[in-house]
Amino acid sequence: MRRWNGWGDDSFNLEMPDQGQAFLAGRVGAGHPLQDATLESVCAQVPASRLSVPAELAPLIDTAAETRVRHARGQSLADWLAMRSGDFGVFPDGVAQPQNSDDVQSLLTWAAAEKIHVIPYGGGTSVAGHINPEDRGRPILTIALGQMNRLLDLDPESQIATFGAGTPGPLVESQLRAHGFTLGHFPQSFELSTVGGWVASRSSGQQSLRYGRIEQLFAGGRIETLQGTLEIPTFPASSAGPDVREMILGSEGRIGVITEVKVRVTPLPEKERFHVVFFPDWDSARTASRKLVQNRIPLSMLRLSNAVETETQLALAGHPTLIGLLERFLSARGAGDGKCMMTFGVTGSSRQCRHALQEARAVCKSHRGVYTGTRLGDKWAAKRFTMPYLREALWQMGYAVDTLETATDWDNVDNLLGRIEANLLDGLAERQERTHVFTHLSHFYGQGCSVYTTYVFRVAESYEETLDRWRTLKESTSRVIAHNGGTISHQHGVGKDHAPYLPVEKGELGMLAIRSLCNAFDPGALLNPGTLIDTETGTRGRTK
Amino acid sequence: MRRWNGWGDDSFNLEMPDQGQAFLAGRVGAGHPLQDATLESVCAQVPASRLSVPAELAPLIDTAAETRVRHARGQSLADWLAMRSGDFGVFPDGVAQPQNSDDVQSLLTWAAAEKIHVIPYGGGTSVAGHINPEDRGRPILTIALGQMNRLLDLDPESQIATFGAGTPGPLVESQLRAHGFTLGHFPQSFELSTVGGWVASRSSGQQSLRYGRIEQLFAGGRIETLQGTLEIPTFPASSAGPDVREMILGSEGRIGVITEVKVRVTPLPEKERFHVVFFPDWDSARTASRKLVQNRIPLSMLRLSNAVETETQLALAGHPTLIGLLERFLSARGAGDGKCMMTFGVTGSSRQCRHALQEARAVCKSHRGVYTGTRLGDKWAAKRFTMPYLREALWQMGYAVDTLETATDWDNVDNLLGRIEANLLDGLAERQERTHVFTHLSHFYGQGCSVYTTYVFRVAESYEETLDRWRTLKESTSRVIAHNGGTISHQHGVGKDHAPYLPVEKGELGMLAIRSLCNAFDPGALLNPGTLIDTETGTRGRTK
Repeated sequence: MRRWNGWGDDSFNLEMPDQGQAFLAGRVGAGHPLQDATLESVCAQVPASRLSVPAELAPLIDTAAETRVRHARGQSLADWLAMRSGDFGVFPDGVAQPQNSDDVQSLLTWAAAEKIHVIPYGGGTSVAGHINPEDRGRPILTIALGQMNRLLDLDPESQIATFGAGTPGPLVESQLRAHGFTLGHFPQSFELSTVGGWVASRSSGQQSLRYGRIEQLFAGGRIETLQGTLEIPTFPASSAGPDVREMILGSEGRIGVITEVKVRVTPLPEKERFHVVFFPDWDSARTASRKLVQNRIPLSMLRLSNAVETETQLALAGHPTLIGLLERFLSARGAGDGKCMMTFGVTGSSRQCRHALQEARAVCKSHRGVYTGTRLGDKWAAKRFTMPYLREALWQMGYAVDTLETATDWDNVDNLLGRIEANLLDGLAERQERTHVFTHLSHFYGQGCSVYTTYVFRVAESYEETLDRWRTLKESTSRVIAHNGGTISHQHGVGKDHAPYLPVEKGELGMLAIRSLCNAFDPGALLNPGTLIDTETGTRGRTK
Repeated sequence: MRRWNGWGDDSFNLEMPDQGQAFLAGRVGAGHPLQDATLESVCAQVPASRLSVPAELAPLIDTAAETRVRHARGQSLADWLAMRSGDFGVFPDGVAQPQNSDDVQSLLTWAAAEKIHVIPYGGGTSVAGHINPEDRGRPILTIALGQMNRLLDLDPESQIATFGAGTPGPLVESQLRAHGFTLGHFPQSFELSTVGGWVASRSSGQQSLRYGRIEQLFAGGRIETLQGTLEIPTFPASSAGPDVREMILGSEGRIGVITEVKVRVTPLPEKERFHVVFFPDWDSARTASRKLVQNRIPLSMLRLSNAVETETQLALAGHPTLIGLLERFLSARGAGDGKCMMTFGVTGSSRQCRHALQEARAVCKSHRGVYTGTRLGDKWAAKRFTMPYLREALWQMGYAVDTLETATDWDNVDNLLGRIEANLLDGLAERQERTHVFTHLSHFYGQGCSVYTTYVFRVAESYEETLDRWRTLKESTSRVIAHNGGTISHQHGVGKDHAPYLPVEKGELGMLAIRSLCNAFDPGALLNPGTLIDTETGTRGRTK
């Protein structure tokens, strides 16, 4: 069953090898776990619902305490701390589970009449506070789209599939696979996140290099708004004015509720493998990765770990004897201390894979890369969606882990990466606490790449102090990103946590554009208030 | 010198071979040219300017009659008829030639205070009425950006170039070539159209298969608006809310004046060749082209002529002996009557070109394509930007030529193409006039492609009747496109000519979104009124 207070299915646990625990203790000190609240104790706190549900909508809306608890928070570290402490703050007043677009339109009509605030909910995997209710003095209805999880139509000639917006990753892929197709959108949240959520938050998958970001995959669909139904027809491309698709992408529930999503799909590839190359230092590694993408070598995935991430991954991998052999092999070929690990995917016909691998290896070799085959790549592929479970394993050991991500142009990658890591490394120094910080580049573009940083710190003696540690790190590093040429998010979206930094990126007139759009569809600000646009003063998007 | 009443430079003429004239006469009857008006007679009609230019702006603004004539019309067939007849209707009251963004902001500030209507003008190559002034009872200032034509910055690592928005195609490429780069954006209007115009109208170039549409190339820039300066920073990608770039793309002057454009550039390719394959029939040809793009074969350009276009191109090519030999060669290999010509480009490193050609030939062969090498492809490449001159040659012979373009999903290509051609073929039947109609597919996507149809008809005995013939064909076919799953434009934009059909495509709520954006930046509708959004009743976007 899905965990009510953490990531994923409670039957799955990621084991942390002993040497992993020792490695972390050496970096940030020994951990001491905090006590978790029970589901019962949290349910007991849930206040009476403020909704007066009319009879015709009653079958759609659940106001039971447990349902409201299970839809109150996403997966940010702040959400995690709220769920573990039991200190949720605000709960939705009810959770609607519509069966179709018409149900959603009925719910919106009712919400508009009653001035109920509405939060669209896909897989509940937001790490930026998108789906968290806030107390604004009005009842709050969460609309959870999980019942709308079917492949509704497939046009195999135009390669367009239509899905209910609540379809999660595995159901997207399994329903397509039955017809010989794939969407190819694999965010780390794949197991739970939904196609509607991907559109609403401008998601990007691990193989965006081949399949594109959700912007390239989203072909059209249906959005229920307070002004009626917005249908976006599919065209392969158009010069007919500003693109309405692009206004829905990243709208985070402020314009309407996405109910049907048409996506561009691809026949299942003949072949797919993931290869690993080690580089002697960061400079060669970064340059090689830039060359791979700027030379348009048709890889399907590319990820480059910096030296600390490489070291950490090898330390947490288990199998110390094998890893020791690997390190001796690499060291003999020039990739010793400071080495950086690159993983790349080749996908397509056998011929395409052969050509792509040939070209990629040539580029890597010319930058002193040591090719190690597909063994480590296969490991990455096998574990590609299990990383979020690591938080659970670390939590049990008394550590908190979070990630920060951005994207920037190539000429700014080292500057921004350096500032982010320095800020996180130093962020708890005043409290005499250390952090462990490492980074990888992923989602490569001719112009630049995303920068994805992970940081680990010890939980404090109380939840309050732990949350405060997190907030100190998150907020100061978000400022570093926003003021040093990074986007406030490359793939997680804005939500409530990033909303205060959005105006730095968009500028006053960019915000005018976005606000005018939201206002046109939702003049009363009933839809997901506080998300995307930081409408209230001082709340900073947190529920407490 | 640039022609004041037609396309391009008046020192260049495209010769029409004798057999071409005979071919057309056989299809639509003998042509009888109309008399052209003189520049002097048109200048004599220009009324006094209604602008009272303040002293500080006087150096920027030209109110001379000839300048106003030269900026009054674009290159649609209706514009052509207006220029040839001398019956212009409305002229701008003055033409500003700013040197930089600050000049543009000063002009806008003045325009706002005086309620002057403003038309941004790039290369004046619109074929949809974008830059035509309309009489709305207010003075009209055209802001021509031709002085802002320089490469302002180049970041070779991030591969971002910054241009003045008025830089035309040849100056974009020559300034980049000096640094070893190319933009790779080659619309047919390349000789005159500008980088700012490409962004404003969502242009697409002939090699979009490699380089992308302008949507993929436009990384950010500067837009002067009535609310101040909008700066769009460059990021390789972002999930931080709706993308402001995408609101400027296709905004057609309604949000502001684009003054600086940052574009994603590419190192000059090592190699580039264009190859030609003939297919025995349309079905095999269309299927092969779809497979080429759906199989992700990295071509840089792809174009597929239907049987009538193939026949017409061979008839107008000259060299009847050589063409006769070619046709016997093809016929012996199964590509006789009804054959369809495909041109494709391969661009990149030698290795990439070799691989792409290998893969492309295999796909073509499996659909009965007959490969003929690069000779005809080289011819296409040599003449790729001269097609607009054909209108001049045909005009001298008494024929009018125009094109219509759209894009649609693969499952609708034949249906839409058939309806467009049928409507054009039959469109003048009531007037006992024939048309000659042919089509190619270009700009291929996994989901579908653009459909580009050319039609030729005889000019009538008067300009009025000729314009009426055109309008009958254009309007009825635009309705066919809008109501049969086509976008009203794949690459020409909306302008005034397509504005009446935009609501069919965008729907009521899509129009609400676009209108709310324009209103936020320009509540008084001073910027390019009538373009994009058909604000007035009954004008249908024509100036007369």
